[in-house]
Amino acid sequence: MSARGCHPHRARMETGRVPGPLAMVIFGGTGDLSRRKLVPALFRLHCESLLPEEFALVGTAMEKYSDDEYRALLREAVVGEVEGDSLESWDRFAEHLFYVHADFGDPAEFLKLKDRLQGLDAEKGTGGNRLYYLAVPPSVIDTIGQQLARAGMIAEPDSPEWTRVVVEKPFGRDLESARRLNADLLKVFAESQVYRIDHYLGKETVQNLLVFRFANVIWEPVWNRRYVNHVQITVAEEVGVGTRAGYYEQAGALRDMIQSHLLQLLTLVAMEPPASYDADSIRNEKVKVLHSIRPVPVERLDEALALGQYGEGEIDGQTVPGYREEQGIAPESRTETFAALRLWIDNWRWADVPFYLRTGKRLASKSSEILIQFQQAPHPILDAVEHDLPSPNLLRLHIQPEEGISLRFEAKVPGLAGPIHPVTMDFSYLNAFGIRSPAAYERLLLDAMLGDPTLFARADEVEAAWAIVTPILEALQNDHVPIETYPAGSWGPASAETLLERDGRRWLEPQNAAEAK
Amino acid sequence: MSARGCHPHRARMETGRVPGPLAMVIFGGTGDLSRRKLVPALFRLHCESLLPEEFALVGTAMEKYSDDEYRALLREAVVGEVEGDSLESWDRFAEHLFYVHADFGDPAEFLKLKDRLQGLDAEKGTGGNRLYYLAVPPSVIDTIGQQLARAGMIAEPDSPEWTRVVVEKPFGRDLESARRLNADLLKVFAESQVYRIDHYLGKETVQNLLVFRFANVIWEPVWNRRYVNHVQITVAEEVGVGTRAGYYEQAGALRDMIQSHLLQLLTLVAMEPPASYDADSIRNEKVKVLHSIRPVPVERLDEALALGQYGEGEIDGQTVPGYREEQGIAPESRTETFAALRLWIDNWRWADVPFYLRTGKRLASKSSEILIQFQQAPHPILDAVEHDLPSPNLLRLHIQPEEGISLRFEAKVPGLAGPIHPVTMDFSYLNAFGIRSPAAYERLLLDAMLGDPTLFARADEVEAAWAIVTPILEALQNDHVPIETYPAGSWGPASAETLLERDGRRWLEPQNAAEAK
Repeated sequence: MSARGCHPHRARMETGRVPGPLAMVIFGGTGDLSRRKLVPALFRLHCESLLPEEFALVGTAMEKYSDDEYRALLREAVVGEVEGDSLESWDRFAEHLFYVHADFGDPAEFLKLKDRLQGLDAEKGTGGNRLYYLAVPPSVIDTIGQQLARAGMIAEPDSPEWTRVVVEKPFGRDLESARRLNADLLKVFAESQVYRIDHYLGKETVQNLLVFRFANVIWEPVWNRRYVNHVQITVAEEVGVGTRAGYYEQAGALRDMIQSHLLQLLTLVAMEPPASYDADSIRNEKVKVLHSIRPVPVERLDEALALGQYGEGEIDGQTVPGYREEQGIAPESRTETFAALRLWIDNWRWADVPFYLRTGKRLASKSSEILIQFQQAPHPILDAVEHDLPSPNLLRLHIQPEEGISLRFEAKVPGLAGPIHPVTMDFSYLNAFGIRSPAAYERLLLDAMLGDPTLFARADEVEAAWAIVTPILEALQNDHVPIETYPAGSWGPASAETLLERDGRRWLEPQNAAEAK
Repeated sequence: MSARGCHPHRARMETGRVPGPLAMVIFGGTGDLSRRKLVPALFRLHCESLLPEEFALVGTAMEKYSDDEYRALLREAVVGEVEGDSLESWDRFAEHLFYVHADFGDPAEFLKLKDRLQGLDAEKGTGGNRLYYLAVPPSVIDTIGQQLARAGMIAEPDSPEWTRVVVEKPFGRDLESARRLNADLLKVFAESQVYRIDHYLGKETVQNLLVFRFANVIWEPVWNRRYVNHVQITVAEEVGVGTRAGYYEQAGALRDMIQSHLLQLLTLVAMEPPASYDADSIRNEKVKVLHSIRPVPVERLDEALALGQYGEGEIDGQTVPGYREEQGIAPESRTETFAALRLWIDNWRWADVPFYLRTGKRLASKSSEILIQFQQAPHPILDAVEHDLPSPNLLRLHIQPEEGISLRFEAKVPGLAGPIHPVTMDFSYLNAFGIRSPAAYERLLLDAMLGDPTLFARADEVEAAWAIVTPILEALQNDHVPIETYPAGSWGPASAETLLERDGRRWLEPQNAAEAK
């Protein structure tokens, strides 16, 4: 496709990379994820001229639609989701959209799908390249993989016509199920063909963090146990469980967030410089961090873990119901909507530096931040009296709602005997560059089309993360850790505060959150 | 004096420190410095309630004035200099002002002055404490000291009634004259009674730098040869020689600025953490730095030094004359109005890190800045091509026109394959605190009254600075280094650029200057 400029008001994303020909198949092509995230992201990529002319998107699901009905369904979805974008070029995009009805259990239907894709290779020039997107429940993944294999729809990893498969999270619900899922996938795909998505990492956070840490010579010398006192990683949501009750009741904050997003962020902060910046070098370093995390002591779980469930409360001046009052939630539900966890990384760089992770729904603001608190200066300064002892330096890496960086340091208050006072220097990607980062799914879909797996999780990475969380989940069966109710709109249960207070520390409110209030 | 609030629009300077009773004598009390700087600063201190009620200012000079005539003279000066300040309380301030005519060569006149001061002790309660301010040419200093001693007007350093003497710069014109001046002063005063002023350091720069370096744990690890590539110190003036031709023709940039201000700034950047924050601990560390500076090789002076003299040019759109056309300047003058100097500090912290100093009149902007350029990151990042190699981190400590700090680091440009790009985080004392730093002379006068010599130069410090500059001045007698004409409004002569280019570096424009344009 040539330059379309269908939203000229938007600053152009810088890239020289347009994928080669491909057909993308979304299994679960009529579902929520497809309509709300995937198709809007694809349409944006189309508008940015980042899709090849030789492109086809084939939705497949249980419903019976014609191509035109499917296009109409997606158009409606895009109108709702692609805010502010012109739909003028929708018709040209829609020419690349197709639908195939499929019962995933029926081999004949896969042969029909294969035929249709081969027809599109001829019609659209998609060249036999396939991106299978599994927007389906984990239970169906093995079936689809088997059917694709049986129908001869998976190319060898080194063949000129490529096949890749994108798997959505949750990737298993514990170590065993994740291993089984990996084993199922690797029966029919090579590891290099599997793209395990964590949309949280699509937000450019990975590359921003790598550049910040490794393109600047001033951070590396202080990025270790000698200078860092502790690290806080907060991923706070304002929303409640919403329409995801069925899934969330089976998941909870530990599975849904800690195992995936928060451990990912931890590895990015803690990893050593990679040998190179290719996907495997980076993932090797991330896995090394996960392997260095000390197992949480399950017999004294409450020393490392605090759990909570939101009760009724106020968000933005509106009263909102508690978790147990939400639609589809059991009135006696013991699912945690908040988790705070202390982890230790037993390696040369991080020994004795606690990493505190917390995440929750219905917290005071939507705000994600990595906070690095440095050691106290070793010595008082000037004629400072006790309350003027230097505050420790803080480096905050904001991720949500906007990506940015701020550094707190001590300065002298002007005046003839001014005391010292902490001040901050701030940096915002948006202010600095005037460009908003592309949405997570745009980034991830493009990377999958281009064959860059950097931002996707490798099998051993997913399993290493589950290996940390699974013993905790198992121990919780014995109810060692109470699930404390916290009011919606707060920063979580008191036990989360206690977790840090016992170490002589306290949670700091994410800076973005503090500013927004 | 109680709170006067004579300029309530001004944010109050934070201090708990009001000096005890004293009489201050200005020798040269009718001169330019007294009228333009000292008396306005004293009046501001009065307005801030930072002068004691038991205070008297006695001006003394050759002219014959009554107290009232002297008050009228000073009132006029203050009207011109204390911008925006109410003069309502002038009359109350004027009650503390007195005048004594004096011929400095006549012992009888000093007895008369002594009588008057004793009278004021009774009348104003100034308690026998004396602050002598020598706003006179260096040639008169010895005479005044001798006369004060002969008249019994100098208390012993440990007596309850204190005597202090403030000496203005220039403090000598080379090592020998500085030593002589020190010897003259120390014949009659103890070193602890001598306050050698460098008004440049009154701008709180000293304390700001100490707090920045030693109240923040993140800078010390990178503040050394391993991480710092080089340091640039720029003190740029927009003004020309003005009315100071007589002095300046005998001085030049090396004597006037390099020996004093720029070496002072260098010591503050380079010094080790002091044992304590008392005056002598800090000055010990500054002297250590000066003693570690490698002597400039006088036989190859042009490798370390560039000199210039401004020619006609444009400042703020106005054509201004060259130095040799200025009033009072010899048409063949060989006085340098610009000097750039490379120095090496031979110690463990700074070996092999060049410190580049430059200063000049009629430069592109009034701007003083210490710039620390860190090493290049050791390794390229991501898929950066050659022009995307990380730029080195820069830390800029702004001193003029506003004090502030900025840090340049590399960030990823948002987008799907964004390159990396240097960005800055900025901090301004004025923006952060909403308080402007007090004028240099307010600070220094108050410190002298309080007996805090931290911001004044000690005898050995002055001599150590002259020991660095004097061999250069002597070698210049042989005209080894050409004095290149540079256009007013530029950044100095081409030879200054060459100085850095030979080392593979270049001067960076002070950030404040760049922003103001």
